[in-house]
Amino acid sequence: MALKFSERMDGIKASEIREILKLTMQPEIISFAGGLPAPELFPVEEMKKVSQYVLTEMGQEALQYSPTEGYLPLRVKIAERMSKVGIKADADCILVTSGSQQGLDFSGKVFLSPDDVVFCESPSYLGAINAFKAYQCQFVEIDTDDNGMIMEDLEAKIKSTEKAKMIYVIPDFQNPSGRTWSLERREKLIEIANRYNMPVVEDNPYGELRFEGESLPAIKSLDTEGRVIFLGTFSKTFCPGLRIGWVCAETEVLEKFIMVKQGADLQSSSISQRELNAYLDMFSLDEHVENIKRVYKGRRDLMLYTMEKEFPKEVKYTVPEGGLFTWCVLPEHMNARDLMVKAVERKVAFVPGGSFFPNGGHENTMRINYSTMPDDKIIEGIKRLGEVLREAFE
Amino acid sequence: MALKFSERMDGIKASEIREILKLTMQPEIISFAGGLPAPELFPVEEMKKVSQYVLTEMGQEALQYSPTEGYLPLRVKIAERMSKVGIKADADCILVTSGSQQGLDFSGKVFLSPDDVVFCESPSYLGAINAFKAYQCQFVEIDTDDNGMIMEDLEAKIKSTEKAKMIYVIPDFQNPSGRTWSLERREKLIEIANRYNMPVVEDNPYGELRFEGESLPAIKSLDTEGRVIFLGTFSKTFCPGLRIGWVCAETEVLEKFIMVKQGADLQSSSISQRELNAYLDMFSLDEHVENIKRVYKGRRDLMLYTMEKEFPKEVKYTVPEGGLFTWCVLPEHMNARDLMVKAVERKVAFVPGGSFFPNGGHENTMRINYSTMPDDKIIEGIKRLGEVLREAFE
Repeated sequence: MALKFSERMDGIKASEIREILKLTMQPEIISFAGGLPAPELFPVEEMKKVSQYVLTEMGQEALQYSPTEGYLPLRVKIAERMSKVGIKADADCILVTSGSQQGLDFSGKVFLSPDDVVFCESPSYLGAINAFKAYQCQFVEIDTDDNGMIMEDLEAKIKSTEKAKMIYVIPDFQNPSGRTWSLERREKLIEIANRYNMPVVEDNPYGELRFEGESLPAIKSLDTEGRVIFLGTFSKTFCPGLRIGWVCAETEVLEKFIMVKQGADLQSSSISQRELNAYLDMFSLDEHVENIKRVYKGRRDLMLYTMEKEFPKEVKYTVPEGGLFTWCVLPEHMNARDLMVKAVERKVAFVPGGSFFPNGGHENTMRINYSTMPDDKIIEGIKRLGEVLREAFE
Repeated sequence: MALKFSERMDGIKASEIREILKLTMQPEIISFAGGLPAPELFPVEEMKKVSQYVLTEMGQEALQYSPTEGYLPLRVKIAERMSKVGIKADADCILVTSGSQQGLDFSGKVFLSPDDVVFCESPSYLGAINAFKAYQCQFVEIDTDDNGMIMEDLEAKIKSTEKAKMIYVIPDFQNPSGRTWSLERREKLIEIANRYNMPVVEDNPYGELRFEGESLPAIKSLDTEGRVIFLGTFSKTFCPGLRIGWVCAETEVLEKFIMVKQGADLQSSSISQRELNAYLDMFSLDEHVENIKRVYKGRRDLMLYTMEKEFPKEVKYTVPEGGLFTWCVLPEHMNARDLMVKAVERKVAFVPGGSFFPNGGHENTMRINYSTMPDDKIIEGIKRLGEVLREAFE
């Protein structure tokens, strides 16, 4: 007899990106598919110093159980760093999570009952879509342009939706589009969220990676009623292998997240939290981030320059001011999943953009990552992709 | 306006144990409340060597994203270790999780729809009860004796329950009771699970910590139809601060757990997994476990000896052959929560046993941990607890 799974499992499937990533793990493939930070920039030597320090000075504590909320000195530092995006927070507003993916899962668990509706950007982050789907929600996609989510469309759809429940946004260097919201849209979102009493989940993994242009305040910094849940992570500014992210929310809301974390995994790694905290004491994360930005800006410039030369003129793409991704839109009749098959034959990979639309469609789009590959592979990979595209246009 | 949370949040409350643990973090308190391994046994020096090795030999890889399933060399080693409890498994049957608490959460997510019924031992592990409650299940408690869950009671209750869904058990040195199931009960459980097509979640954090008596095969090793999900952890045999546990299940079932993990936190720590794997290569975990067992056995003996002298004769307690806990039963009119208040005044702590019964009652019980405190504190703490108990009998 086959075991009977829960109803929610009907809606959960393996992330297509994870499957593609497996395919592209072959070393000869030039992959623009992942959202991986550049490993050659990881502070390996610093981590060696930091791990010796932590094990020498507080080894037993670092290997023992510790509070669900997180290591207090680290929570204090995270709260202070929130001022970079204009958020005033203290340690009581911070829960340390195992990456910001866990913050997404918890947001779903805390807010979503079956058939509740989540309003998200069209396109939106696949990992969030999958995390929320586990709570059997529905998605209503909101139109977007170069200034972010279109507020008139959001309000109209909230009004006409019966089980309107939560708004999910990635306002800075969005995954997958690379686009950033204007200040006006951010302010307007808070107005609408207040009017319709909706929680807002603000997912901000890339905000610190701005190469150019003016920094904009986080939506949470404009929050007047404690309804924004801000999700942060050290995965893109430090390294993802430690699995350290955080939730910043008003204490009454954060309390719910803490209870959920108790049941989910008790706590994030005691030793990773202490290592990160020691790194923040002993080294300059800001200097490290400057270095990352310099390298990623160079790669973005090189990629866009090469795309300009190699891609057919009909292919449109975004010019991100930061983050990890550019987003290509092909003529409507084209299908990026078919192109992906041909691309992998030429040993180059990207993610077909259709995966980022929870309700399907938009198969003429592609997400291309520029943070992972070194310069020579960016040139060679975009050349190969250009060939695939030009053939498709013939 | 107050934000509206999901329906499931009505049933989730903060773990009483975590709250008690906070209270007992004051260094002057002698705490028998936690389920903490003895920190002085943690392999701190070995971890220093291991962390240098991993960062030197594979630093970039250890700090990068890695597969959801876990680090393959570690999965191979875990699969091999499963033979210790009679389970034949290969790496495809192993998912690395962030502690076995995450395995409990995922078991709920994969199997439980609202109002589904979980059959559990009476008493059962509080952390599992809380993890499953998040999926809005109901609990039916099954009577237990010194040989484990009583199979006639289980079968009768399965028959009379409409939404019978899952069986949850801790057959070795149970938390909180310290009791171990007989072989006969283990075999009978598989028969019943097969007959009623139920998945069995076998939670085994303490199985390797047997001080005396004969090792018994895991229930999973008797599984003829791939319906047992075995949850393991390195938290009690190595250290909990790394947050490394695992799920062992048939590949079709494990696939569901892997999809759930993708949405929950993408993966467990890349660096912790590599450190643990290197430890298993460079040192002997078996020797380390022998050392832990020697120390815990000494503490158990000392605690039971002191309880015999200091506790009123009316107080009954279990004599565990391994694990971390003994379980005290007071006369029915007594209330351990009231005694806990008096105990904390005398700077000694335990966990009132009522918390371990999902449907309430049994307030005349106490869980007492013997693994954490050194000998002098065991003697002093049990003396103080004896005073509290003797006063309560006056």
